[in-house]
Amino acid sequence: MDYNEKMFELGNKGSAIRELFEYGKKRKAEIGENNVFDFSIGNPSVEPPKEVSDSLINLLKDKNPNEIHGYTSALGDNDARNSIRDFLNKKYKANIDSNLIYLTCGAAASLTISLNAILNLGDEVIVFTPYFPEYKVFIEKACGKVIEIPVDMSDFQINFDLLEKAINNKTKAIIVNSPNNPTGALFTKETIIKLSSLLRDKEIEFNHTIFLISDEPYRELIYEDIEYPFITNFYDDSIICYSFSKSLSLPGDRIGYIALSSNCKNNANVFKAICGAGRALGFVCAPSLFQHLIPYCVDKTSDISIYKKNRDILYNMLKKIGYEIVYPDGAFYMFVKALEDSSINFSKRALDYELLLVPSDSFGMPGFVRISYCVKTDLIERSKDAFTKLFTSYNK
Amino acid sequence: MDYNEKMFELGNKGSAIRELFEYGKKRKAEIGENNVFDFSIGNPSVEPPKEVSDSLINLLKDKNPNEIHGYTSALGDNDARNSIRDFLNKKYKANIDSNLIYLTCGAAASLTISLNAILNLGDEVIVFTPYFPEYKVFIEKACGKVIEIPVDMSDFQINFDLLEKAINNKTKAIIVNSPNNPTGALFTKETIIKLSSLLRDKEIEFNHTIFLISDEPYRELIYEDIEYPFITNFYDDSIICYSFSKSLSLPGDRIGYIALSSNCKNNANVFKAICGAGRALGFVCAPSLFQHLIPYCVDKTSDISIYKKNRDILYNMLKKIGYEIVYPDGAFYMFVKALEDSSINFSKRALDYELLLVPSDSFGMPGFVRISYCVKTDLIERSKDAFTKLFTSYNK
Repeated sequence: MDYNEKMFELGNKGSAIRELFEYGKKRKAEIGENNVFDFSIGNPSVEPPKEVSDSLINLLKDKNPNEIHGYTSALGDNDARNSIRDFLNKKYKANIDSNLIYLTCGAAASLTISLNAILNLGDEVIVFTPYFPEYKVFIEKACGKVIEIPVDMSDFQINFDLLEKAINNKTKAIIVNSPNNPTGALFTKETIIKLSSLLRDKEIEFNHTIFLISDEPYRELIYEDIEYPFITNFYDDSIICYSFSKSLSLPGDRIGYIALSSNCKNNANVFKAICGAGRALGFVCAPSLFQHLIPYCVDKTSDISIYKKNRDILYNMLKKIGYEIVYPDGAFYMFVKALEDSSINFSKRALDYELLLVPSDSFGMPGFVRISYCVKTDLIERSKDAFTKLFTSYNK
Repeated sequence: MDYNEKMFELGNKGSAIRELFEYGKKRKAEIGENNVFDFSIGNPSVEPPKEVSDSLINLLKDKNPNEIHGYTSALGDNDARNSIRDFLNKKYKANIDSNLIYLTCGAAASLTISLNAILNLGDEVIVFTPYFPEYKVFIEKACGKVIEIPVDMSDFQINFDLLEKAINNKTKAIIVNSPNNPTGALFTKETIIKLSSLLRDKEIEFNHTIFLISDEPYRELIYEDIEYPFITNFYDDSIICYSFSKSLSLPGDRIGYIALSSNCKNNANVFKAICGAGRALGFVCAPSLFQHLIPYCVDKTSDISIYKKNRDILYNMLKKIGYEIVYPDGAFYMFVKALEDSSINFSKRALDYELLLVPSDSFGMPGFVRISYCVKTDLIERSKDAFTKLFTSYNK
């Protein structure tokens, strides 16, 4: 074979989300930006906080360009790492050590680096369906096996009976993603306590580390007054994968971090494996100009009240039309029941009304579509007619 | 095993270059920036061209922030890809198709993505020693086997007898790196013609594609009036791995590209495998602000006359002291014969004089040190005494 067949398949199929995104770009060029209701991708529509542009311009004007554009340590710039530690320890009363923070090119990189650092051939990684489809791609590329466990569909919390049965001697890690893509659901503090307790028991039973990987790019996007259960406060063998993509509206710039729990077993060695994986995958260092931005913006977010407003308008509008949805607490996604068994066919029919909705099969669960509401509020308002027509087409 | 042993080893050992770089940072803090002669790392010292800061500031001031910071297509922004095509086709009279350009997080990413796209378990990749040590890390992580062939040490060109013997049925790719890290040598047009001809013959003999991967971050850093033999003009199954790190002095910002030859066999499928590999390794897209910078700076370089001046001063100074060096045509490296058999011990003794020189064992060849002369010119001038003392310590 002249090339790698698996990589070809991944490139050929693409992700359903990305494909819809590409279709949307084409379609907008054909019929005009305003006539396509593109709910396909988690590309933030709210501008970055003012401090982002201001600080970037100041860095470019005032600092030595060879410093701000130069290589940093592979781990990342110390000021950036210290500012992340200070922020997390203050906001979440955590015990993060800056020596265990590794800056990355965003959450995807945080995940691939973490997975390659800990997995050996045949290790199993448990994910909760519905889940971000790239998890499967990342886990398999790191030679792991994906084990899918559905969440309770009533409240999107963990089904502990199913989870307990799925954990075995090969289980190396469990990925949680809260607030969740694609459902917008938040794991409650009770869920995290129960999960941590179960994993501690299973670590003893199987006599090896079971990592809890917390993929939390939406951590700062919560719209209710709920205490966020910060993972390292509950479970020692945990790895936080963060990205500033969503909180600072910088998804394209690829900046995020891995924070390994200070209480993780063998943390010095696990951290070295993280450094080794970052190196072997070709990351070198996280984009340096954006590393230098972190100290100025680590505690800032875009104006997330806009997403809250979008959520409320969209939720009320769709409920009123007749759609079924579980109320989402965070992120900027809504998981809506498809009006026929095949979410793929439903998503296709939605295109007749210029609605770009991602079928839930991509997330390992049939029967739903994901709506990304990180769009202009007026697009949601203008989409009412299309959503109504789509609904009516099934209920004539 | 609680983590991946290979990744741990890569993180634990680190690269010799990176370790020396970290030592240098520590040492500068101890005895002052000016008292350490840090020739360890290829971190450009010449400022980026004025257009870099100006264009970045203009983008930040004038453009829709959600566009310049938003996700691009995984392949990269179209304007950026078109501008790269236009530049290459004009400057090198090439036949690059923008549909076969994939923007990356720099040359390391270009290499890991390309290698993962084409290699299957057990495939062999030939590299010419001395070579950039991360090639081995990247090839092995992509499940390939490294085959090392020394260059002719008289002129740093390919030893075709050795190469021909090394090519077999498992040979999937050959990496060339010209101008070279660590020697600064340039493969001549004759070398590239002969190499291409040999590879075409071997493709027929073994009836499969043999890729020529051209890692060329130093392509725009050539100090003599020499025609650069642009790879795709000579060999069809070639993949260009480029980075703007050195030409624009932006090594930390991680921006570069892969350009697959338009005449490559199965190029549509190979390109899809490249897209798949980028996805599976977690790259998502190249940093978007810097993608948007490319159309403004694709044909610019930093003031490379400074590197030329550095080369001339350093070369003449070291020759006068008595060191042995092959005159380098490009990049910003000089490969100097160590004054004892062990380049590692020589490099250690150099530290007594605060000289940071990378031992050549890291590059797969004993007996030399690499000097990165992308430093301030006055550091080279001030280092004369240290180099003299080091030389004298061996010649008392």
